[in-house]
Amino acid sequence: MPQRKGNLMSVRDDVKVVDATIRDGGLCNNFAFSDEFVTELYKTNIRSGVDYMEFGYRASKNMFDPKEHGKWKFCDEADIRAIVGENISDLKIAVMADVGRCDYKTDFIPKSESVIDMVRVACYIHQIPAAVDMIEHFHSLGYETTCNIMAISTANTEQVDDALTQLCESSVDVIYLVDSYGSLFPENAGELAAKYSAFAEKAGKKVGFHAHNNQNLAFANTIETLSYGFSYLDATAMGMGRGAGNCATELLLGFLKNPKYNLYSHLVFLENYMIPLRESGVTWGFDLQYMFTGQLNCHPRPAMAFTTEGRNDYSEFYKSLLDNV
Amino acid sequence: MPQRKGNLMSVRDDVKVVDATIRDGGLCNNFAFSDEFVTELYKTNIRSGVDYMEFGYRASKNMFDPKEHGKWKFCDEADIRAIVGENISDLKIAVMADVGRCDYKTDFIPKSESVIDMVRVACYIHQIPAAVDMIEHFHSLGYETTCNIMAISTANTEQVDDALTQLCESSVDVIYLVDSYGSLFPENAGELAAKYSAFAEKAGKKVGFHAHNNQNLAFANTIETLSYGFSYLDATAMGMGRGAGNCATELLLGFLKNPKYNLYSHLVFLENYMIPLRESGVTWGFDLQYMFTGQLNCHPRPAMAFTTEGRNDYSEFYKSLLDNV
Repeated sequence: MPQRKGNLMSVRDDVKVVDATIRDGGLCNNFAFSDEFVTELYKTNIRSGVDYMEFGYRASKNMFDPKEHGKWKFCDEADIRAIVGENISDLKIAVMADVGRCDYKTDFIPKSESVIDMVRVACYIHQIPAAVDMIEHFHSLGYETTCNIMAISTANTEQVDDALTQLCESSVDVIYLVDSYGSLFPENAGELAAKYSAFAEKAGKKVGFHAHNNQNLAFANTIETLSYGFSYLDATAMGMGRGAGNCATELLLGFLKNPKYNLYSHLVFLENYMIPLRESGVTWGFDLQYMFTGQLNCHPRPAMAFTTEGRNDYSEFYKSLLDNV
Repeated sequence: MPQRKGNLMSVRDDVKVVDATIRDGGLCNNFAFSDEFVTELYKTNIRSGVDYMEFGYRASKNMFDPKEHGKWKFCDEADIRAIVGENISDLKIAVMADVGRCDYKTDFIPKSESVIDMVRVACYIHQIPAAVDMIEHFHSLGYETTCNIMAISTANTEQVDDALTQLCESSVDVIYLVDSYGSLFPENAGELAAKYSAFAEKAGKKVGFHAHNNQNLAFANTIETLSYGFSYLDATAMGMGRGAGNCATELLLGFLKNPKYNLYSHLVFLENYMIPLRESGVTWGFDLQYMFTGQLNCHPRPAMAFTTEGRNDYSEFYKSLLDNV
C-alpha cells in the first residue's frame, strides 16, 4: 500500500509549481500572446513564488511554418531573452520539445549560453527510446530534463513498468505522469503516482504531474499525486490549456502551505490579463463535450472540433462518440 | 486506517443518486422553475436511473411569504402531485426541512397520505438536538429521514463525535456530511467519511455526502466519500446550486458503474432545459470569488453579493475577505 507524504498542514520543500500557461494555453490561441502578456506573467510568477515558467515549444521550423504560428511555438533564445533578459530571479525557464516534432540536434545551444534551464521532452509511451535519446542530448548540453509521458490512461501496466525502467536508467531528472485525456480519477491517479514514486525514489529521480480538466478533476488529481510524493506540479492561469484546460494555478497556490507562494499577485494578473483574454473570445475549460472524451478515455480532438464549430447538440455528439470508441 | 469499499470497477448496490437540482438550484432563481422544467426533470431522473429527487424545501409560510418565492420553497403536497401524480416509478421523492425555518409539527401529513418518501432535515452542528426532535416526528409519521449536518468544515472533532453519537441513537436513516463552504479537500473529506462510516455502520445507519464546488472539488470529494462507504450522493444537473454549485449529475452518472444509470437521457435534459436556463441569465458555478470563500473556509455570502453586484475586482475582493476572516 503506497504511503502518503506529509499531510494537509505540511510544507514540502521539494514541491515545484510549474506554470505552463504559455505552452498549454498557447494551444488555445496558436501562441498569439502579446509581449506585454508574457512579460507580466513572467513578473507575476516571480512575485507569486512560482518555480518554473514554461515559455512554449521549441518546434521544428522545417515542420512548422513560423508565419503560421505565434513565436512561442518556437521559443527562440532571443525571444525569451527579450522578455526575461538574463533572468535575474529564482524563477527557472523551461521549454517543451516533442518527440518527432523538433530538430533537437541543431536547435539547442549549450546551457552555458542559454537562458533556458530545463527542457521538457514530451512523448507517447511507445516513443520512450526516442525520448531517452533526446534526454541524453539535452543532458550533455547541461540542461535539466523531464520526460512527460502523455496519454498514460491508455497504457497498460507492463508498458508503464517498461517505460519507468528505461527512464530510471537514463539521465532524466524528472519523470512526468501526464493525464492528456483527463480521464484519470484521483483513485487511479494516486495508484499510478505511488508506482512512479517508487521507481523514481530508487533511481534518485523526481516525479511530476500534468493534469487535464475534462472531468473537473485536474486540481483533485494534482493534489492526490502530490500526496504520494510528486514534486513537480503543472498549473496554468485560470486553467488555460487545450480543451478542458489544466489545473488552475490559483487553486494550487491556495492549497500549498509554503508561505513563499503568494496568491494575491497571481489574482492581479488574472484580473488584468486572463479575464480580458477570455472575454476576447479565446475559449478553454470544462464543458460537456470534453467531459465525454474524458469519460470515454479518448483524445479531445472531436470535442475541440465540436467547440470550434459552435455546436450545441451535446446528446447527438455523445452518441457519435459512442459509435467511434 | 479507514478502508475503501470496492474499487473503480465495482457496482455498489447501496449507492443512491439524489438529484437536488430543484432544491439547491432553487437558491439561484428563488425557486422560479416552470412546471414543464420540473416535470421533464422528473421524467429524466426516472429514465436516468436516479434514485431520489428532492423537490425543494418545505419552509414555514409564517416565516416566508409565498408571494415572494417560487412554490418549491414550500413543496405543497398538491404541487408535487401535479408533477408526479401518484409517482408510479422507482424514483423516490424528497423534501428538505431546515431546523428553525419550518412548521414541522403542523405542515406534514402522515406518509401513508403523502407522495413524499423522505424528509431531509438540515441543521448546523449545534442544532442537532432540535434536528433529532424533528427526525423523531417525521419517523413517527412514517417517512424515511436524513440529517444533513451543514458547514462541517467549521466543526471541531469533539463536536462531530458528539453529533454522530446523538444521531446514531436517533431514528434517522441517513447521516449526511455537508461541505457547505466547499472547503474540504479529498484528503480530509475521506477522513471525515471514514469516521461517519464507522459510526453509522455500528448503528445500522447509512451515510451520504452533499458537496459544493468552490474549489472545483465537488465531484472529487463525492467519489472520495463514496469510496469510504458513502451511499447517498447528492448531485444537481450541471452542478446548479448556490454559489459555486454542487457535484454535477453528469459527472457522477459517467463515473458510476451500475448499468441502471443512463447518462444519455440526462444529457437530453441538459440540452433542452439547463443550457437555456443558464443562457436566460441564471448564474451558478465555479468562479474565483467562490474559490476564495472555499479556501478561507467561510460562508459564500460575500461572494454571492460580489456576483449579484456584477463586480470584477477580484483582487480587491480577496483582500477584503482577508480583513474579515
